[in-house]
Amino acid sequence: MDDKLMLMIPGPTPVPEQALMALSKHPIGHRSGDFSKIMAEVTEGLKWLHQTQNDVLILTASGTGAMEAGIINFLKRGDRVLCGNNGKFGERWVEVAQAYGLNVEVISAEWGKPLDPEEFRAKLEADTDQQIKAVIVTHSETSTGVLNDLETINRYVKAHGEALIMVDAVTSLGAVSLPIDEWGLDVVGSGSQKAYMIPPGLGFVSVSPKAWEAYKTADLPRYYLDLGPYRKNAAKDTTPFTPPVNMFFALQVSLRMMRAEGLENIFSRHHCLMTATRAAIKALNLPLFAPDEAASPAITSVYPGEAVDAEQVRSVMKKQFDIVLAGGQEAFKGKIFRIGHLGFVCDRDILSAIAALEGTLSSLGYSEFSPGAGVVAAAQVLTSA
Amino acid sequence: MDDKLMLMIPGPTPVPEQALMALSKHPIGHRSGDFSKIMAEVTEGLKWLHQTQNDVLILTASGTGAMEAGIINFLKRGDRVLCGNNGKFGERWVEVAQAYGLNVEVISAEWGKPLDPEEFRAKLEADTDQQIKAVIVTHSETSTGVLNDLETINRYVKAHGEALIMVDAVTSLGAVSLPIDEWGLDVVGSGSQKAYMIPPGLGFVSVSPKAWEAYKTADLPRYYLDLGPYRKNAAKDTTPFTPPVNMFFALQVSLRMMRAEGLENIFSRHHCLMTATRAAIKALNLPLFAPDEAASPAITSVYPGEAVDAEQVRSVMKKQFDIVLAGGQEAFKGKIFRIGHLGFVCDRDILSAIAALEGTLSSLGYSEFSPGAGVVAAAQVLTSA
Repeated sequence: MDDKLMLMIPGPTPVPEQALMALSKHPIGHRSGDFSKIMAEVTEGLKWLHQTQNDVLILTASGTGAMEAGIINFLKRGDRVLCGNNGKFGERWVEVAQAYGLNVEVISAEWGKPLDPEEFRAKLEADTDQQIKAVIVTHSETSTGVLNDLETINRYVKAHGEALIMVDAVTSLGAVSLPIDEWGLDVVGSGSQKAYMIPPGLGFVSVSPKAWEAYKTADLPRYYLDLGPYRKNAAKDTTPFTPPVNMFFALQVSLRMMRAEGLENIFSRHHCLMTATRAAIKALNLPLFAPDEAASPAITSVYPGEAVDAEQVRSVMKKQFDIVLAGGQEAFKGKIFRIGHLGFVCDRDILSAIAALEGTLSSLGYSEFSPGAGVVAAAQVLTSA
Repeated sequence: MDDKLMLMIPGPTPVPEQALMALSKHPIGHRSGDFSKIMAEVTEGLKWLHQTQNDVLILTASGTGAMEAGIINFLKRGDRVLCGNNGKFGERWVEVAQAYGLNVEVISAEWGKPLDPEEFRAKLEADTDQQIKAVIVTHSETSTGVLNDLETINRYVKAHGEALIMVDAVTSLGAVSLPIDEWGLDVVGSGSQKAYMIPPGLGFVSVSPKAWEAYKTADLPRYYLDLGPYRKNAAKDTTPFTPPVNMFFALQVSLRMMRAEGLENIFSRHHCLMTATRAAIKALNLPLFAPDEAASPAITSVYPGEAVDAEQVRSVMKKQFDIVLAGGQEAFKGKIFRIGHLGFVCDRDILSAIAALEGTLSSLGYSEFSPGAGVVAAAQVLTSA
């Protein structure tokens, strides 16, 4: 049914009406006092959301552009870096590092499994002459729904002392607590179409003083993604290049909504949506792709195996129930489906999705559950939270 | 007065209501058939607007990001390039080329004057062993309102045979005819907040088969701005990274509007808006910054000298008449003001702006014109067109 689409993918995520309305305002000039006021307000809001006093810079780019900027501004050609890879995005940061001639060492885990912090510890402890200049970790691996143990990995990076910690927080920032200052995270990249509750089009990078120190001697070529001019201009509440002003209108609205809800409430809401979704999937006797102890609060991946065809599930969910789920990527294309519960998502949305999923599974001949069990399990989590 | 702002700057430009409404639609998934349909339609529309069968690729970036992509994808470190510089944007492409270690030779002209094609000819003819790999030219120099003689410069590039011609068409594409296939332009960059009539947030690059040939041996580091994956994905009506789907909704609408108006009508409208504006400024006895023979159809710069303070003009225009004009940049900050007449601009807008300018000038004590003369001159051009 037209205009009835409900997005339950890990981005774009649903956008609240007031942010949509802000998008349709007439643009203003970006070299104006009016724009600078918005820039000042959203920058303050971003620092609040990032739990940091570090710079949080705003780029016209997808999350990938923001993460690339985070990597290439603070390193020199040939620098040794460790990069975690347990999914499509970890893989991508390896590719970025290689494209710029960095000396990348990859620490891998199977898709669906978390990275092992002890592997980082071993490499970092062995690096007694401090050649490792950065450790790149994807916090919430969107392709699998795994939340890596960033806190522990980061502890080992801090013990190393030299390496910068660079975090892909694209689907974690705003969904789970990421206390940048408390943990001392140097570079954290994210994108607007996730927990920010606005459409794609903006990327964000937070940068620590230690990273800015490294910036001084960094030598990888860059211009549009050179963060120095972003910082210099942000200090004057402006941007080096024309910003997408309408997206700033929407960001202003969504950050106000987030502040009204409060950080702790946002995080506990996401935790609860995740727990309810996982309880429902278990009640439906379908295998979860990520283990409980490494589950992303942003997205739940289901690996139905032979029980039912993942692509057929997605197809019926969309055609009959107007709910969009994400599929698997690369080797897991057609093998998993992913339920996004990130950003502007409420308890009712989970019940709708699970109820629709039950109907879909039944219509596809999967009967390994007692009808209603998924909805009951989800509701129990939600109402007891 | 709130919500009464009228933008007469060279971007962001005014956005039609139907494009604004499209922006506020709920996002859809970018890996969906629905998005691919939009992608296919806008790509077709972009080729029509670019008068080309070349690839026209769409990036989440400002015009600067698009131009940087256009430069860095087709060259090797140390390559010799010629770069025209007669304003802020020419200067920017010199900086980009230098940032990537290209061997840049700059052909300059004073701000407010056009580049001399004969200087390009001399360099290109002298380069008998074909070491010049690219010639970078800003078509409409936004900072000054000068339209460079791209047609002639390009003729010399074609005679050279080896060098690629790379064009910054950010404020010319869609305002003046740029027959990419007829002229054989290799790389042409532009941005959404200009003649496209939508907000900032998208950059466009058209790429010729000759440029793709050079891509095969190009070696400058890039990932987010690597155009190869954009081309590969565009062939499947999709994008390598999450695109700003709401901007695509708006682009779909604005391209339909442009097709309904027709290329020739769009170009003659801009020509007429420019001619009327310039006639009015002359009638007000204020000096034009760019000469008639090199005037941009997108923007008219006025250089009032001692007659009246440019920043005061802008201030009164904004405060009393809710019209935003652009100021000068760099050395010309405070010395010129710029009237944008690009994109969604009609005859009435010019009359409003000139009438308001007359009132502003009088209120600032400038009396070197007979009241009404500017409006009469503009109206004469517009009604006789």
